[in-house]
Amino acid sequence: MGDSAGALVSIDRVHAARAVAEELGIDAVVLTPGSDLRYLCGYAAHAMERLTALVVPRAGEPLLVVPRLEAPMVDASPAGALGLEVHAWDETDDPFAVVAREVTARLGTAPRRVAVGARTWAEHALGVHRALPGSALELATPVLDRLRMVKTPAEVEELALAGAAIDRVHARMGEWLRVGRTEAAVGADIAAAILADGHVAVDFTIVGSGPNGASPHHELSDRVVQAGDVVVVDIGGETPTGYRSDCTRTYVVGGEPDAETAGWYAVLQDAQEAAVAAVRPGVTAEQVDAVARDRIAAAGWGEHFIHRTGHGIGLDTHEAPYIVAGNDLPLEAGMAFSVEPGIYLAGRAGARIEDIVVCTDEGVRVLNNGPRGLVVLPG
Amino acid sequence: MGDSAGALVSIDRVHAARAVAEELGIDAVVLTPGSDLRYLCGYAAHAMERLTALVVPRAGEPLLVVPRLEAPMVDASPAGALGLEVHAWDETDDPFAVVAREVTARLGTAPRRVAVGARTWAEHALGVHRALPGSALELATPVLDRLRMVKTPAEVEELALAGAAIDRVHARMGEWLRVGRTEAAVGADIAAAILADGHVAVDFTIVGSGPNGASPHHELSDRVVQAGDVVVVDIGGETPTGYRSDCTRTYVVGGEPDAETAGWYAVLQDAQEAAVAAVRPGVTAEQVDAVARDRIAAAGWGEHFIHRTGHGIGLDTHEAPYIVAGNDLPLEAGMAFSVEPGIYLAGRAGARIEDIVVCTDEGVRVLNNGPRGLVVLPG
Repeated sequence: MGDSAGALVSIDRVHAARAVAEELGIDAVVLTPGSDLRYLCGYAAHAMERLTALVVPRAGEPLLVVPRLEAPMVDASPAGALGLEVHAWDETDDPFAVVAREVTARLGTAPRRVAVGARTWAEHALGVHRALPGSALELATPVLDRLRMVKTPAEVEELALAGAAIDRVHARMGEWLRVGRTEAAVGADIAAAILADGHVAVDFTIVGSGPNGASPHHELSDRVVQAGDVVVVDIGGETPTGYRSDCTRTYVVGGEPDAETAGWYAVLQDAQEAAVAAVRPGVTAEQVDAVARDRIAAAGWGEHFIHRTGHGIGLDTHEAPYIVAGNDLPLEAGMAFSVEPGIYLAGRAGARIEDIVVCTDEGVRVLNNGPRGLVVLPG
Repeated sequence: MGDSAGALVSIDRVHAARAVAEELGIDAVVLTPGSDLRYLCGYAAHAMERLTALVVPRAGEPLLVVPRLEAPMVDASPAGALGLEVHAWDETDDPFAVVAREVTARLGTAPRRVAVGARTWAEHALGVHRALPGSALELATPVLDRLRMVKTPAEVEELALAGAAIDRVHARMGEWLRVGRTEAAVGADIAAAILADGHVAVDFTIVGSGPNGASPHHELSDRVVQAGDVVVVDIGGETPTGYRSDCTRTYVVGGEPDAETAGWYAVLQDAQEAAVAAVRPGVTAEQVDAVARDRIAAAGWGEHFIHRTGHGIGLDTHEAPYIVAGNDLPLEAGMAFSVEPGIYLAGRAGARIEDIVVCTDEGVRVLNNGPRGLVVLPG
């Protein structure tokens, strides 16, 4: 529950959320434990059934509503230094009534539009709504995305540290990914290395060997790695400040790739590089997707690229902006996201290349820098 | 994403949920990744922004709505053997429209009451609601609690395995909890031991030494354990089948407890034993709470017992039934929950004793069996 992200957080973020809510005509924003709460006030609480909520009314002072038994943890977190009003509730109180009362008091009237975090649990969202029966419930996504999508230089440095840490794990892959070992055994070694180097938690370890590589979100199985296997390794974790790593490389174990594999992998690598190179302010998210997609389609592999090109990253592994057809959001300097096209041949093999990149005034900064070609491991 | 709980799951659970929904007049139940989904169909998916949902209409066949790139993972999970209809959606489809269309087709009319999982994210709950604008949104808690609260004998055995595993970790506490070490270092050793014995994930490691023990949900800090410290150690994890462990013991490190501490600890131990002994079918949840609370209050420590007596446990660490004032639910054989009173002296020290127990036809079965007295470690 400690949080070394203290230096990244200030009360300015809470005030900025209030200003955006007012601009959008939202009367109150209610955020429960998760990345939104951590972003705004530095309190990295676990989501639990007892309500913890940062309540930001359009007017008046924001407040934190917390179970009394967790009030000492707020003081111990960076949130303790922000001067936020804290309302501790007891085990037999109704915390939703506290939220309703405090919001109504600050506004001088009952709120009409109440926005909750996108990942707030339904029991908490509907609890707030029940306590404010005249209100309409909506998502706070427009408020939080506005703030969280554009990273400050300090946040970019946190993502760069995360990127360098996961690159170091990939660089050691030959120690673990060997013929005769199961994906599960390889994944356990990777998880230990993620924890040993730069991270406080493992978010995911995908080791898709041979035909399993054709399932993009396959994680780990008892399949034994065979000589000549193409293996997709997509791994990431959480750093001490909460920022995430996420990087995919594709390996060949115990043998050179055959000519066909080398051929479609070259198409993929060209598409990934072109999409990264297309990133600059003013280009839209869907245009970056289209650059990768068009190159893969032009080479005849379009039906095998079955997911979007990327996702934003920060305190969540997946957050806005999403790099997908239909998202006409223009990129801005400070936006950080993955560029990760893939080609998947059902029943045979798959490959994906993923880097985290940041849009800059000059174009793009790439935060993962290990080799992007098919890495041949001795086996 | 694999799940060795396959033997615990059958299509009967989905059908039971449908029957309860019909009985309660709920037109459709929509459950996203998390313990509800895993309980009903064995699919242990991660919660992500892409919608995965088990949709159970009051009438007609249930279905799973999943992102196309994750469809292979459903087949690989126990859910793949249940014969559920699977609707895979593509990256640019609207999955909420799929849910709305399929529910409406099965019912022959638009649903009026739609229930979502208590821990379904607001973005998914409101997405379903937006696609079914004539419906009222509510929680599926009454449906799921009815099913999940009463454990089958096979589920009780899973909880017993979890309890024995965490007992073994507590039994080794003297290896790690020593004078001069930080709570964080002790916690890291405990976490490694949890993973090494019987668990696939660490849920929490609370090491509250000296004054930190007075904050019930304190986790870990850089505080160095001092000679004579009273230390609250509350730890738990997830077993391969998804069932959880959760056990608290209180230690004294490098010295015997003083007479005052021994005095109030004896009150606590008496209260915990009495509350456990009170468990039997027909006794209400709040009566169990009252047994512990009355004993602590009668000894003059009532204001220092600042939380409920317990919580249900199963595929979630905290689930129904909650052992708290105001909950007049009568216990039934098969209900599993913690009994964990505590005494907290702000700025000085705290103590808690927690066992997982199961209500049985005969009374109670206790799943944690390490010593409950103050365990003195050499330091």
